[in-house]
Amino acid sequence: MGSAHKIVSSGMENIEIMGLVAAVLTTYSIVPQVHKTWRNKSTKDISLTMYMAMFLGVVLWLIYGIYHESVPMILANFITAVLLFVMIVLKLKYK
Amino acid sequence: MGSAHKIVSSGMENIEIMGLVAAVLTTYSIVPQVHKTWRNKSTKDISLTMYMAMFLGVVLWLIYGIYHESVPMILANFITAVLLFVMIVLKLKYK
Repeated sequence: MGSAHKIVSSGMENIEIMGLVAAVLTTYSIVPQVHKTWRNKSTKDISLTMYMAMFLGVVLWLIYGIYHESVPMILANFITAVLLFVMIVLKLKYK
Repeated sequence: MGSAHKIVSSGMENIEIMGLVAAVLTTYSIVPQVHKTWRNKSTKDISLTMYMAMFLGVVLWLIYGIYHESVPMILANFITAVLLFVMIVLKLKYK
């Protein structure tokens, strides 16, 4: 029974670690795009509508996270919003 | 007091509607990029790393949503994962 309890409790921890990894991945993912765009100074293939809709959505997630006092949601969505804003500026600069 | 209660309760509904709008916007945002890439058949300026990291992150959010039995998280992340997968296929096809 001791080892069964151990499996269940480590399973519950794992799902929260998975949520954290998910937040880091979806937030981090914008970085290589910013890096590529910054280096190549070309945004022909990039959809401005995508970045504007995603930015607006992430800002709403940020407000939702502030309301629900969720620190991971606030941090992840704040950093993502900043990165998406940089992409929008780069798209408008190099369009 | 009746009207104050009405303001508070409508405020609580609004935040959940805002969460729903946030989910729709962040999910929908990939559509104009898929459309642009499908039409132009060019992905030179698009970072494969971004889409792969975001896809992996969204799949983990999907598993997280399934574990927490959150229908909005499951739906939003499933549709987003499909759209990101299409973008990865298009990037590999038109690289």
